[in-house]
Amino acid sequence: METYKRQDRPVSERIDDLLSRMTLKEKVGQLNQRMYGWDAYEKKEDGAYTITDAFKQEVERFDGMGALFGLFRSDPWSGVDYANGIAAEHSAAVANEIQRYVKEHTRLGIPVLLSEESPHGHQALDGTMLPVNLNAGSTWNPELMERAYGLTAAEIRGRGAHLGLVSVLDIAQDPRWGRTEECFGEDPYLAAAFTRAAVRGMQGEGGLASDGSVAVVLKHLCAQGAGMGGKNAGPANIGERELREIHLPAAFAGAKAGAAGFMAAYNEIDGMPCHANRKLLTDILREEWGFDGIVMADGQAIDRLLALTGSHEGAAALALSSGVDLSLWDKSFTTLEAAVSSGLVDESEVDRAVRRVLRLKFELGLFDQPYTDESKAASGIGSPELTALNLNIARESAVLLKNDRDRLPLNGSGKRIAVIGPNADQMYNQLGDYTSVQRPKTGSTVLQGIRMAAPADASIVYARGCGIRSSSAEELEEAVAAAKASDVAVLVLGGSSARQFGGLFDGNGEAVIGQETAYEMDCGEGVDLADLRLGEAQRRLAEAVAATGVPIVVVLIQGRPHAIEEVDRLADAILCAWYPGKEGGQAIGEILFGIVNPSGKLPVSMPRSSAQLPVYYNQKDPGRVRDYVDMPSAALYSFGHGLSYTRFVYEELSLSAASVAAADLSNGEQVKVRVIVRNAGDIAGLETVQLYLKARESGITRRIAELKGFAKVALQPGETREIAFSLGAEELGHWDNAMNFGVKACKVTVMVGGGLRQTLQAELAIM
Amino acid sequence: METYKRQDRPVSERIDDLLSRMTLKEKVGQLNQRMYGWDAYEKKEDGAYTITDAFKQEVERFDGMGALFGLFRSDPWSGVDYANGIAAEHSAAVANEIQRYVKEHTRLGIPVLLSEESPHGHQALDGTMLPVNLNAGSTWNPELMERAYGLTAAEIRGRGAHLGLVSVLDIAQDPRWGRTEECFGEDPYLAAAFTRAAVRGMQGEGGLASDGSVAVVLKHLCAQGAGMGGKNAGPANIGERELREIHLPAAFAGAKAGAAGFMAAYNEIDGMPCHANRKLLTDILREEWGFDGIVMADGQAIDRLLALTGSHEGAAALALSSGVDLSLWDKSFTTLEAAVSSGLVDESEVDRAVRRVLRLKFELGLFDQPYTDESKAASGIGSPELTALNLNIARESAVLLKNDRDRLPLNGSGKRIAVIGPNADQMYNQLGDYTSVQRPKTGSTVLQGIRMAAPADASIVYARGCGIRSSSAEELEEAVAAAKASDVAVLVLGGSSARQFGGLFDGNGEAVIGQETAYEMDCGEGVDLADLRLGEAQRRLAEAVAATGVPIVVVLIQGRPHAIEEVDRLADAILCAWYPGKEGGQAIGEILFGIVNPSGKLPVSMPRSSAQLPVYYNQKDPGRVRDYVDMPSAALYSFGHGLSYTRFVYEELSLSAASVAAADLSNGEQVKVRVIVRNAGDIAGLETVQLYLKARESGITRRIAELKGFAKVALQPGETREIAFSLGAEELGHWDNAMNFGVKACKVTVMVGGGLRQTLQAELAIM
Repeated sequence: METYKRQDRPVSERIDDLLSRMTLKEKVGQLNQRMYGWDAYEKKEDGAYTITDAFKQEVERFDGMGALFGLFRSDPWSGVDYANGIAAEHSAAVANEIQRYVKEHTRLGIPVLLSEESPHGHQALDGTMLPVNLNAGSTWNPELMERAYGLTAAEIRGRGAHLGLVSVLDIAQDPRWGRTEECFGEDPYLAAAFTRAAVRGMQGEGGLASDGSVAVVLKHLCAQGAGMGGKNAGPANIGERELREIHLPAAFAGAKAGAAGFMAAYNEIDGMPCHANRKLLTDILREEWGFDGIVMADGQAIDRLLALTGSHEGAAALALSSGVDLSLWDKSFTTLEAAVSSGLVDESEVDRAVRRVLRLKFELGLFDQPYTDESKAASGIGSPELTALNLNIARESAVLLKNDRDRLPLNGSGKRIAVIGPNADQMYNQLGDYTSVQRPKTGSTVLQGIRMAAPADASIVYARGCGIRSSSAEELEEAVAAAKASDVAVLVLGGSSARQFGGLFDGNGEAVIGQETAYEMDCGEGVDLADLRLGEAQRRLAEAVAATGVPIVVVLIQGRPHAIEEVDRLADAILCAWYPGKEGGQAIGEILFGIVNPSGKLPVSMPRSSAQLPVYYNQKDPGRVRDYVDMPSAALYSFGHGLSYTRFVYEELSLSAASVAAADLSNGEQVKVRVIVRNAGDIAGLETVQLYLKARESGITRRIAELKGFAKVALQPGETREIAFSLGAEELGHWDNAMNFGVKACKVTVMVGGGLRQTLQAELAIM
Repeated sequence: METYKRQDRPVSERIDDLLSRMTLKEKVGQLNQRMYGWDAYEKKEDGAYTITDAFKQEVERFDGMGALFGLFRSDPWSGVDYANGIAAEHSAAVANEIQRYVKEHTRLGIPVLLSEESPHGHQALDGTMLPVNLNAGSTWNPELMERAYGLTAAEIRGRGAHLGLVSVLDIAQDPRWGRTEECFGEDPYLAAAFTRAAVRGMQGEGGLASDGSVAVVLKHLCAQGAGMGGKNAGPANIGERELREIHLPAAFAGAKAGAAGFMAAYNEIDGMPCHANRKLLTDILREEWGFDGIVMADGQAIDRLLALTGSHEGAAALALSSGVDLSLWDKSFTTLEAAVSSGLVDESEVDRAVRRVLRLKFELGLFDQPYTDESKAASGIGSPELTALNLNIARESAVLLKNDRDRLPLNGSGKRIAVIGPNADQMYNQLGDYTSVQRPKTGSTVLQGIRMAAPADASIVYARGCGIRSSSAEELEEAVAAAKASDVAVLVLGGSSARQFGGLFDGNGEAVIGQETAYEMDCGEGVDLADLRLGEAQRRLAEAVAATGVPIVVVLIQGRPHAIEEVDRLADAILCAWYPGKEGGQAIGEILFGIVNPSGKLPVSMPRSSAQLPVYYNQKDPGRVRDYVDMPSAALYSFGHGLSYTRFVYEELSLSAASVAAADLSNGEQVKVRVIVRNAGDIAGLETVQLYLKARESGITRRIAELKGFAKVALQPGETREIAFSLGAEELGHWDNAMNFGVKACKVTVMVGGGLRQTLQAELAIM
């Protein structure tokens, strides 16, 4: 038997052997992920699936295939729905058929990788969609997310796919960006914590070949959140410090946690597209961090390098030599044979990338067990455990921004409740972009959640009132009438990333803005919003309801922080629920009626207006407050903010030392920070204790505050708890003027509290 | 006689000799510019001037003084006006007295430098204030500005001062920034052209010791226009490419033109404040460019380095070793003796800075002729020649944005003209920040200019209507009545940088926003504006006037591009005059009535809204248009736009070669670009022919367009002119991935026209 087929040989030896047998064409085929997975099969009228000629030709073209993207993807862009898509119970069979075709119709029988979109759950028919990443960030509970990622991986691997593409790295600095929902928030430390959770959860601990393990491809590397003007894929004209301090920590955490891959980002950084950025993809990622997995291109991104090279061969050579290993939907990587033969790139660079792809296939065990147990395919999908986690994520991620007059919970507010607004009863508006077609009548909308949670004798009336972006006032009167007849109005406002069948999409799947696009979609990939206020009809609706004199509670369903100052003035209470997912309605209902005590904290600052952007909290310290002449510079609600129905008191902040030597920290010494948190209210609650540092006199300019620790704790009424944090070289170090990371002499204020507004403070001197 | 006093010895020898005689204290004294000049004298009741004890003590403290800032400065911050300030005719005498005191009361008799604020004319009593830099940029006529700078220098040197601090380097990328008015615009090529004009004009060609020559200190180095959020002195988190492509070209041009000095900028660049930025101030400025003049600190900026160092000595050492030579109002540089003795910085670094300061004093001839001819002091001030130039700058800088229905010139619009608005008759609102106290009843407001230019039988009524920022509606009715009774309404709207006596100012002179600050000031240093729309009362005024049905012409007096979309919808014609200076009213009147044909072109793009920032034209090419879902991404009026009362036609664009070798360009070859411009209208006019390049396939991402040539030409009706441009290595080169500048193989589209919207295009291949 050939060495590469022998399970008893070390992987490196098997790779060497296999590579030595491969033609250049076969090698290039291993770097190919050009095909859309939904073009690989057809569902016939009798419900059977066949492999398409297009797929067979693609396999034949390079006598093999590196990876097939999105075999199970379902959404308006792919056009896959319950009628023509792969049902959960048939998934493994189709995956096996694909794999079998590749194994049996190629000379070397190298298995194909099946990669799947899973930015917040698996984007497949009946795949469980988690709340979007802004919700994950709002929970401040990475352990909760790790469990959810683990069950998502089980769904994916159970169907027979191997790679999960997960959004974890983007930092939300400009809420105009339509992909803000895909970010864990604006903070690198928080994003790093959730990135670790994603890697651990999806890959598991038993190795990639284990049941339920999915190799993660973390996206996007890097700095896509710094895109100019909040425009999708916009240039990040930042310097290296900004890159290292803000945009790289999550990627570094992911690499250290053992992520199998990274996806390069569309944007350029100071003139160099990430796909052509050798410093990023090779010098930092591989040489500095020691990462040895794969780098996948983003969709058609390598073809965008034609702007730099003028030819597909040149684009392929540039991307490959910069550090991209695997293509996605581009033509360029299919021209690598020509690029090699014309001398644009050396075959050894092709070999290097092929080795990485093959290693991943070996690590996943695909050479030894390429097929999936078809009897188990559907068993892990939509598990009650994951549904319960999904509900808990929605519960823990809703952020109570404001609660004047203790308007919430609603119990004492009267029995007649008007539920009004364009997001009150629209399931798809709760789910965010990258959502698969949903099975009807599953999950709960906010209206349904309120009905479930309200006391039996409550009377609930519903009026939509208006659309997200429509200018029609047709429904206004009905809503006002409903409000007038009620004791309280719950206004469910916000935005929507719900895609429409028939919408315009680019070749890479992003939405294209145009007259033909349904205007109700005001968020999501490709849908950037300049004026962050809610749609005009929604503001008019809020004004009209407020004019009735009924007390107002606002629930925000949104994929980005809107500028809600006008609505804020009208409402007693505001609950920001982001896109809370399928169980979101139930979670919100429970919170509104006090069945669940809200515990979310903002992972991103909410601006007063687009005019004051940026408002993220961790800006460089300007020495003194620098307001605009017409507006404060501060956010309306800052990062870290979030109220509870109970009250938490912080006491007795202490450090284990008032000063410490930089050298000792470098050698592993830690400073312990302790604080007492007490639940001073009457009901149980969850509190996120946040630790920030403010460093100064360290030879560079520093930020106003930097999150360097957090802990979410459950406290019964009257209960106190001591929370301890450790600060070592990682937390207390910084990138110096020569761009080396380390601990230097400086002064540090340690701030601990339930948010940034009120903290206990202690001073630490690093000598 | 000591060598340093011997005029027959080479300067370098004289410096060596002098330095060898100096104590450390005396050296530190030569780097000292701590005192505000207006604290150095007192004007007594009898009109005589005396030198203050404070000044004498400052001289004694270091047995000498490097420089004294702003002896002649007059403004609300300094508190200097006609009652207590130095009259033009006494200026030289006071300067001489100051100089004599220093010469005669110090051991070595080293003369003091007198430095003066001259960002747009000399900020002194009776100093001629030029229109602000946005106007200069709008003229696209550096020759005109060079003559004006020359006469400004004559005013300054005639009074006995030596250094002029000139704003030339800042690039206006975010119109929220209150100092936008101090920029030549958003384009580095345009700014570089005017920077050269400033250096040549002020320094002259006969050497700094010549009559009428002033050594220029160009400010600010560097990237202050990239301040985050448009906030003054905000961090520029940009990378090196953005720095080199956008923010450094003007400085490079200034250095090459022989500028005597640079002022470091307040902001940080990617973590390093410019005052501590050795790479900027030494590696690039001195080693790469060969600059050997002085680097001056900005006001109190070195003290801001305490955030990095924790001590004044540390801040001084850091700034000095990074490349700052001369202080400004900071305490830190006065501690340099201690910094040396404690080993924070070597005395050789002090020597290096002292040499630079001394060399400048030698070059200015101050050792040989420290005194100024007192009889000539006032003769050059307010010369008719400069007043005429001032008028021409105002004429050539007004930009006709829009002229529907040929509403302008007003000749045929009827005899009854209503002049309405808060900027119609407010002289100080036309002058910008950094303006000296003005002699009453000089110059012309817009209302006065209209009265001067209108036909004798015209009837002109004036109503202010509202204030710049006030919310009062008191004056609205009167304005509406005036409009109703008129055939046309000229609405003079905009902003104001006019400072009030009694306003709040920081220690560095910038305005501080607060309740106590008169809110009418919405622009200028320290006054950043979030929402770029005109003040609400002005918008209400425009709506009310429009509702009368009278045709509307808008004149904008402003120090930044406002977002005028709402007003734009109401007006037939809009003339953007920026802050047109003292003669601005006359110039505007002449344009409105067709006596002068407008010829200004926008040096900065005008946004539709703060929500779509940034809108500058030379953004990186995103591959396809990326609009927001609720707004285009394009500016309302783009850089380069400007209408005329005549019509210019472009024909026959040609290149001397369709392809050229990169190596030949590097060796000096030039590609000639020729185009024919024809005045196709009935009246004479000035047109600015603009040449842009769009490069691609050059290995990095490129910009949508880059200005690389312009020429302003006067054409009679029917006249044609061939305009020729040369493109060589400087225009066709770029900073490559390794950050080296040179010409590389690429494709270039050459675009020529009277703006960016319509251009003739030709292709050039660089092989």
